[in-house]
Amino acid sequence: MAKLWQKDYDLNTLIERFTVGEDYLLDKNLIAADCVGSIAHAAMLSSINIISNDEYSALKNELLNIIEDNRKKSFTITVSDEDCHTAIENRLVEKLGDAGKKIHTGRSRNDQIIAAVRLYTRDLLLELIARTFNLVEACIAFAEKNKNVPMPGRTHMQIAMPSSVGLWAGAFAEELIDDLSLVFAAYRLNDMCPLGSAASYGVPIPLNREMVSDSLGFEKLQNNVLYVNNTRGKIESIVLDSVEQIVLSLSKMAQDLILFSMPEFRYFVIPAELCSGSSIMPQKKNPCGLELIRAKSATVSASVLQIKGIIKALPSGYNRDFQETKGAFLRGMHTALDCIRVMTLTVTKLGVNEEKLKAGFIPEIYATDRALELVAQGMPFRDAYKEVGLNLDTLSSMDPVEALQAKTHTGATGNLGLDCARKQLEALKLDFVQKQKRIEDGFTSLMGFRPALFSIDE
Amino acid sequence: MAKLWQKDYDLNTLIERFTVGEDYLLDKNLIAADCVGSIAHAAMLSSINIISNDEYSALKNELLNIIEDNRKKSFTITVSDEDCHTAIENRLVEKLGDAGKKIHTGRSRNDQIIAAVRLYTRDLLLELIARTFNLVEACIAFAEKNKNVPMPGRTHMQIAMPSSVGLWAGAFAEELIDDLSLVFAAYRLNDMCPLGSAASYGVPIPLNREMVSDSLGFEKLQNNVLYVNNTRGKIESIVLDSVEQIVLSLSKMAQDLILFSMPEFRYFVIPAELCSGSSIMPQKKNPCGLELIRAKSATVSASVLQIKGIIKALPSGYNRDFQETKGAFLRGMHTALDCIRVMTLTVTKLGVNEEKLKAGFIPEIYATDRALELVAQGMPFRDAYKEVGLNLDTLSSMDPVEALQAKTHTGATGNLGLDCARKQLEALKLDFVQKQKRIEDGFTSLMGFRPALFSIDE
Amino acid sequence: MAKLWQKDYDLNTLIERFTVGEDYLLDKNLIAADCVGSIAHAAMLSSINIISNDEYSALKNELLNIIEDNRKKSFTITVSDEDCHTAIENRLVEKLGDAGKKIHTGRSRNDQIIAAVRLYTRDLLLELIARTFNLVEACIAFAEKNKNVPMPGRTHMQIAMPSSVGLWAGAFAEELIDDLSLVFAAYRLNDMCPLGSAASYGVPIPLNREMVSDSLGFEKLQNNVLYVNNTRGKIESIVLDSVEQIVLSLSKMAQDLILFSMPEFRYFVIPAELCSGSSIMPQKKNPCGLELIRAKSATVSASVLQIKGIIKALPSGYNRDFQETKGAFLRGMHTALDCIRVMTLTVTKLGVNEEKLKAGFIPEIYATDRALELVAQGMPFRDAYKEVGLNLDTLSSMDPVEALQAKTHTGATGNLGLDCARKQLEALKLDFVQKQKRIEDGFTSLMGFRPALFSIDE
Amino acid sequence: MAKLWQKDYDLNTLIERFTVGEDYLLDKNLIAADCVGSIAHAAMLSSINIISNDEYSALKNELLNIIEDNRKKSFTITVSDEDCHTAIENRLVEKLGDAGKKIHTGRSRNDQIIAAVRLYTRDLLLELIARTFNLVEACIAFAEKNKNVPMPGRTHMQIAMPSSVGLWAGAFAEELIDDLSLVFAAYRLNDMCPLGSAASYGVPIPLNREMVSDSLGFEKLQNNVLYVNNTRGKIESIVLDSVEQIVLSLSKMAQDLILFSMPEFRYFVIPAELCSGSSIMPQKKNPCGLELIRAKSATVSASVLQIKGIIKALPSGYNRDFQETKGAFLRGMHTALDCIRVMTLTVTKLGVNEEKLKAGFIPEIYATDRALELVAQGMPFRDAYKEVGLNLDTLSSMDPVEALQAKTHTGATGNLGLDCARKQLEALKLDFVQKQKRIEDGFTSLMGFRPALFSIDE
Repeated sequence: MAKLWQKDYDLNTLIERFTVGEDYLLDKNLIAADCVGSIAHAAMLSSINIISNDEYSALKNELLNIIEDNRKKSFTITVSDEDCHTAIENRLVEKLGDAGKKIHTGRSRNDQIIAAVRLYTRDLLLELIARTFNLVEACIAFAEKNKNVPMPGRTHMQIAMPSSVGLWAGAFAEELIDDLSLVFAAYRLNDMCPLGSAASYGVPIPLNREMVSDSLGFEKLQNNVLYVNNTRGKIESIVLDSVEQIVLSLSKMAQDLILFSMPEFRYFVIPAELCSGSSIMPQKKNPCGLELIRAKSATVSASVLQIKGIIKALPSGYNRDFQETKGAFLRGMHTALDCIRVMTLTVTKLGVNEEKLKAGFIPEIYATDRALELVAQGMPFRDAYKEVGLNLDTLSSMDPVEALQAKTHTGATGNLGLDCARKQLEALKLDFVQKQKRIEDGFTSLMGFRPALFSIDE
Repeated sequence: MAKLWQKDYDLNTLIERFTVGEDYLLDKNLIAADCVGSIAHAAMLSSINIISNDEYSALKNELLNIIEDNRKKSFTITVSDEDCHTAIENRLVEKLGDAGKKIHTGRSRNDQIIAAVRLYTRDLLLELIARTFNLVEACIAFAEKNKNVPMPGRTHMQIAMPSSVGLWAGAFAEELIDDLSLVFAAYRLNDMCPLGSAASYGVPIPLNREMVSDSLGFEKLQNNVLYVNNTRGKIESIVLDSVEQIVLSLSKMAQDLILFSMPEFRYFVIPAELCSGSSIMPQKKNPCGLELIRAKSATVSASVLQIKGIIKALPSGYNRDFQETKGAFLRGMHTALDCIRVMTLTVTKLGVNEEKLKAGFIPEIYATDRALELVAQGMPFRDAYKEVGLNLDTLSSMDPVEALQAKTHTGATGNLGLDCARKQLEALKLDFVQKQKRIEDGFTSLMGFRPALFSIDE
Repeated sequence: MAKLWQKDYDLNTLIERFTVGEDYLLDKNLIAADCVGSIAHAAMLSSINIISNDEYSALKNELLNIIEDNRKKSFTITVSDEDCHTAIENRLVEKLGDAGKKIHTGRSRNDQIIAAVRLYTRDLLLELIARTFNLVEACIAFAEKNKNVPMPGRTHMQIAMPSSVGLWAGAFAEELIDDLSLVFAAYRLNDMCPLGSAASYGVPIPLNREMVSDSLGFEKLQNNVLYVNNTRGKIESIVLDSVEQIVLSLSKMAQDLILFSMPEFRYFVIPAELCSGSSIMPQKKNPCGLELIRAKSATVSASVLQIKGIIKALPSGYNRDFQETKGAFLRGMHTALDCIRVMTLTVTKLGVNEEKLKAGFIPEIYATDRALELVAQGMPFRDAYKEVGLNLDTLSSMDPVEALQAKTHTGATGNLGLDCARKQLEALKLDFVQKQKRIEDGFTSLMGFRPALFSIDE
Repeated sequence: MAKLWQKDYDLNTLIERFTVGEDYLLDKNLIAADCVGSIAHAAMLSSINIISNDEYSALKNELLNIIEDNRKKSFTITVSDEDCHTAIENRLVEKLGDAGKKIHTGRSRNDQIIAAVRLYTRDLLLELIARTFNLVEACIAFAEKNKNVPMPGRTHMQIAMPSSVGLWAGAFAEELIDDLSLVFAAYRLNDMCPLGSAASYGVPIPLNREMVSDSLGFEKLQNNVLYVNNTRGKIESIVLDSVEQIVLSLSKMAQDLILFSMPEFRYFVIPAELCSGSSIMPQKKNPCGLELIRAKSATVSASVLQIKGIIKALPSGYNRDFQETKGAFLRGMHTALDCIRVMTLTVTKLGVNEEKLKAGFIPEIYATDRALELVAQGMPFRDAYKEVGLNLDTLSSMDPVEALQAKTHTGATGNLGLDCARKQLEALKLDFVQKQKRIEDGFTSLMGFRPALFSIDE
């Protein structure tokens, strides 16, 4: 079909393929979001009499049809369409004639794309947050269940001091909660309505930008029209930076689990249904899911680096370079979401081998506890430290569980403070519910229901 | 002097130099912060009767002496000291004997370093935030002053639509404010007290971690002791990620200013005192400050990437790898702060050449405005777009200022909404004042005054 | 179909989808390469009597059928197949029974994948090199044609000294030639045969690894079997590093062309057929191809960073993490190849506006030439420099072409030395022909012809 | 002192400090190289009669004095000097008057810096190559010594198949040799003479660029003068890319050694003199050197990323951004060199615990060998694989050394092929000697001796 900008010349086919790139594929993700954005825009155009009520009804109706067709996988985007925005406008013109030709009044593909990406990202982030809640809960439950199961504590990967499986799992629960605080901060910047900024410089039409923002359930309107366009890619990088922190947490967790399920440890047992085999070695059960989580943290890091590399030192206003941020952003986000789901499954199914864990408690692990006993008997710490260090062979074993329970200060093995994590999680959940409600309210008043702008493959 | 862990063997000298690395230099930054952390730790040890009141007084006194010596540049750290923590403990032992040998009771260098870095970072972040406030104010003032000065709006670096210097500067004011929201979110995670987590696994002593946290003015205590140690490097990466967004904003601003001060534009005039010359070409006045801001965004990005590369997939607990995050973090933070200061100076001194700016308004710039005139006359937008596109040679010039003022919707050239930015800035400043007060309060009750943990070279 | 390792349990479906990832799609690229590798492996197995001659014939025949089916797009890989290797083995077993079950004797998927990736990469690199030859030739031709067309030389983006379009284009010709020297060095490391290394530890069968290497046209056999497996991802990163240098060269070239085709310069004219339009602004002709080349250099950089991030600090032997390098590698390579093709098209079609170029020669551009005139009259350079610098307003214009021709030393505007570039290019082409021949010879003796392992979309 | 470009205004002090950055410190590295470059330039100026023979003698003499002063640490660069080039020219003017003012005739700081960096890099690379030769030799000797010492072979970090310490060490020897091939390719691009390109556009003086190139021992002259300046940073990134591959190899080696010296393995024993202790835990001996090598691979990767981030999409000709590549380059190179030295020391001193290594040979490790026994008895491989996989509990132990020796094909445990590595190493050493000789010859004819342009701290 015709491009939106088609006038009196044809694009070289190599350039066409190069500039369209994967957009015609990637944009499948954005169809529903773009239609919803267009309905809100049309409603506003009708409110300021740029289009008639009938035209608005027709447009809304057809845009809802496209959402439905897309749900049934029957709406297609071709290379010559360039992107979903063109495919949708073409369909509107084809079905509705002049009303279709009016939909683009007062907007540009620039603000239209930003709107679609933000709407889509918002729903994706909500899903990702919900899934991370699940993971935090799995970690807390695992920590609770294993709070008195001893585990050799390590530094430098060497035996350090007594620790517990509960402390280990609780650490990740708290880390993920703090990671989520960053995701929420990024969410807020994504939750600004870009529509009305047009090509970067607004339009000489009295658009009601606030109305559009409210009906799309955005928390606020992004004010300066040039700023809106300068944030293409930037907000994607902010969102991905926050999500990358989750994936970095998971990379550590994965490394721990891979390490401590090696035959020489067997602290943790990863059930066979989560392991792949080898094409040549009959005995292998490999922790492939965890290895891929470890690897995929590099994928997410590279995605955000790609985006930052693109936007760095780019002059103000729209530049075509922005397009190249889309694939990286989607790849990074989907990868992160997958990693969260796989880790949740793993924690849920993870076996713990108490016997092997206890076997790791060699006498050296109590060296610091012994030095602090000498301190309690009046020796200055640095002297006690040397005394023990020069007589390591005299260290004797003790009961690991007692050693855990002797650490009673806040956050230590005898005082994990899981309730503290639970409370923080509840606070995040309240915020989450409010975010969902704002969208629910906006969409319901605009369309009578809330279409899914993102859906996960189960 | 002796290392803290020195017992019965000597370290190979190559390994010593390699493992110490630049720590003996970098740690100059951390001396004051480490002393303050040690005072708080000692106060708590005395409150639980691990040390006597007299020992506490002696330790506090000597630690304040070290802070003062350091202020006068007379406290030194040698390679054989390894780091500031050892140099300080050695001094305490030398001056105070057993009291000095007791200071390390119930802590490890691990939590001690984290505490010093966080205290230092907190003061540095506050300085950086204050400087960014200045920059935002400079942008708003510049926007206000030039709100009706026309500037060709561009997309794809080509002439797009009428814009203004005010819109341009206002965009950066809003961008920096949003960047600051991320810095504040990162600040919160840095503002957690790590002390008491020791080597990663707590200690069998009833430490009062809450007391230490409060006296150091931290917003909260970081609970799980393993989690504390797992955040070394991670929190640095979070802080730098937020600061990197500021620098990315500045890279765009710098690129715009470099571009539009080229002789073919001369929209902006960078005064000679901000320009360097050439060793061979007598006529050159080069915008070196701006070019270096553009370049240094890559430095900040690389710093944070280095940290993330180090912590990725590192097993739980302390690993020596963490040490290698320190130089990158300091480099990234100091670089960002420098860039902010130089950009503020530049905006403050920047000249605007109205004549040259107006000369950029070639007739094509009004093409979209013309198409929307046709829309106002009843033509569907897509038809109007084609009509104008096929008759570009008939476009006539118009008054640029009128064109600016015709865009009256929120955030457009006729309605910049600078007050909206001003209000957001005020809210951030309120938060800033509260943060300062919490530190002021903690430090005053601990030491009677607030020592500077970070200071800028003026 | 069954997985190669399937025995007595089923994989969790989420884990299956996660661990297969995009392999079932990406592996379409590798089908032909894998079949060729398998033919060479089977030939060797037959030569050491692990399989019979008849079995070998049957296997070879069926593998050639698969290559042909794949050429016709009728060979499919499903998610449950995991990858092309399984799909192919399954087909062989289905069609040939026991012969199919024997093909995997003495190899693992590990060395099989490495072999397929290297064979594919080799053909892709040869295509990329050939395309870069075209681009170098286009640059040389453009430089030759415009060797006396003046162009303002810049430093710091400010006017510096007289330059020429010839010097500009010649610089890129030489840069690309040097980039190619790195691609050739990387090619050599990719051109080592991995087969026979199996899972990383060889097999207790007297494989004739040299025979396999020769019949696949590899330059050499990669000796140590563990080393082979440790280079998964590593060699991909080496190849991409070299290709990234080409793309970095193109990012500079693109930036220059975007900049100097802005209306304020119009030194270069990018024909409309290479430009896209805007959805809202009727007048726009945007250099989208060049902007995307500029952006895509970040994509290639991110791809190689992803791979390095994955392999960094990974223990020896195969780890599943390696799988995650495949998508990044293919994305990086295909992106680079596209950029090279689009830049070649652009250089070929690029217009030059001599009048606008000459108009850039403001008097200041001659300041250095003037200072050196004073030197010729006996003034020490530093004095001459100051003399001119303090009297810039007395500089007079001169003929740009004369100024170009006055620089006669090697590599300057009056002595471009394009023949030097031509000679280097010829040497590279000779090496290229030899590389092609070695493959031709190996494949012809193995299969009687050379199947295409990589093909470009025209 | 005065800046080279100082004329009639003063630079703002903040800008001065910002633009000088760390150059006044970093440039200590470049003083000798810059002096040598200046001697060659002066010799050429005298040969074309721009300066007299007496002036040349005086300049040469004073430049040699500066080299000597620098060797004694008595030559200083101040912030107001900006860099070593200015400090040196200022000294020449101060001591020699007009002769000093003439040294800059026909060059710019741009080509002067590039020359100094390349000369310095050349010597540093030669040192790094020599040190890597040592490491390769240490690996080969270690492999030879332990060629029959069994070591459990792993994939996915799980027990896979029998392997040997010899295979493990031999893998790294071969990897480092291939890495070196990339370093040599990068060396060639660094070994091009940039002098005479001046500010990027040559000069109207008949410079004899070939003479300068030869007297500095460069392999070739870099022709196009704009190309020369476009490679600032680029060649640094190419050199670092090659060196990064070495460091990535070391990160794997370090990870293996850290892992397999954990108490649960103790395959390898790192002697105490290479280990640091803990400030709190008396028993700790931590493999800090290896952990830092693992971490520092991220430092090197970040350094090269910083450089590529800076040069990406920078317009042609000199831009001040280039300055910011210097610190990153030096940091990356010095870090890599340190890592190589520490790893060599570690391999040389590494203990091997044969008993613990053999204890890792659990029966499962022979599963593949068993399957291939069934193949030898006529069972198709895929059937044998399943047969063994479903009966793992029937696997019996066997002699590990016999298992190693049963793998006789090229590159396997019974046929390591260390001579193949030795031969490749010899070839590289021959090339190395020739490179040294070319420099020796050039420098001797220019100055009568070869000053050290880089020296290592022993």
